[in-house]
Amino acid sequence: MKTSLGAKTFAYPLPIWVIGSYDAEGKPNVMTAAWCGICCSKPPAIAVSLRKERHSYDSIVKRKAFTVNIPSEKYAKETDYFGLVSGKDVDKFAATGLTPVKSGTVDAPYIKEFRVIIECKLIHTYDIGLHTQFVGEIMDIKADEELVGEGGYPEIEKIKPLVFTPGLRKYHGLGKCVGDAFDIGKEFKK
Amino acid sequence: MKTSLGAKTFAYPLPIWVIGSYDAEGKPNVMTAAWCGICCSKPPAIAVSLRKERHSYDSIVKRKAFTVNIPSEKYAKETDYFGLVSGKDVDKFAATGLTPVKSGTVDAPYIKEFRVIIECKLIHTYDIGLHTQFVGEIMDIKADEELVGEGGYPEIEKIKPLVFTPGLRKYHGLGKCVGDAFDIGKEFKK
Repeated sequence: MKTSLGAKTFAYPLPIWVIGSYDAEGKPNVMTAAWCGICCSKPPAIAVSLRKERHSYDSIVKRKAFTVNIPSEKYAKETDYFGLVSGKDVDKFAATGLTPVKSGTVDAPYIKEFRVIIECKLIHTYDIGLHTQFVGEIMDIKADEELVGEGGYPEIEKIKPLVFTPGLRKYHGLGKCVGDAFDIGKEFKK
Repeated sequence: MKTSLGAKTFAYPLPIWVIGSYDAEGKPNVMTAAWCGICCSKPPAIAVSLRKERHSYDSIVKRKAFTVNIPSEKYAKETDYFGLVSGKDVDKFAATGLTPVKSGTVDAPYIKEFRVIIECKLIHTYDIGLHTQFVGEIMDIKADEELVGEGGYPEIEKIKPLVFTPGLRKYHGLGKCVGDAFDIGKEFKK
């Protein structure tokens, strides 16, 4: 029996990513975002939604660039912290001891210690409501060499990305492989 | 040492959701989508990207509605199948034995056997490139009663949602809880 829970921002599983940008003074800054995902294959693009009052909002508009830094379980505390405070008030790199590095392809910093980085150039801005959606074309993916496996992709079991659950406000790790995509459903094709 | 992997549609973790709609003849149809996520808190909204040639594309444009059906591990094969074939050619509900139910708040069907359903009204359509992004306002969340826990949210450990990994083309389950969001990062606030 289904019960109605009303209109809420709820869905599972969600990513939790750290968005990097340079502010007006050129200071590297990072913030945590969960309202995001891949949104197009050609051009390859990622959508990230931000509120206008976020310090990163103007940074991304002005530099037309951001990075997506994929946190591993090891950096769960730092990832959480990046969503608790504003770059207006504190230097989040100094507070956590992490290292900003200038991206090769876009005008935004990434976090050296994070294992997988996506460099994005801002190509669209959509005002949806409380959140504005930034669509960034993926210009390059950078990953720690030892993580790259089959087919030239970083292996997810080695990245150990976090999964975010809104409402319950938890971070989870990744579980076991359940099956191969574009394969396990073939049995229904008979 | 970081290595460059080029511009690819790659990011972890990603959701894998089943999108429900009625086609021109009123036949309930479902398709699998991974280029999606929450995109706004007010109005609460979900973004789902589709290619124009998908059978569901016209259905969503005409009825201005879709559902997001969150698959659990139990339905991994059905979820994969929904992405392998087109509703133009087959009745995916008949092929899998699952049951379409008309939504209470929008003109789209949901899958009775799936544990959590999000009913969405189409409010924006953005042409990004190969993919068009549909933004749906969340009108209601429906969940199996026995899954709803603390704070009125379905408990993620009971849902057992799938996590999709593009590139490696795998489905994973959910792992252990790593920590509380908006809490474990407080130690850096000193």
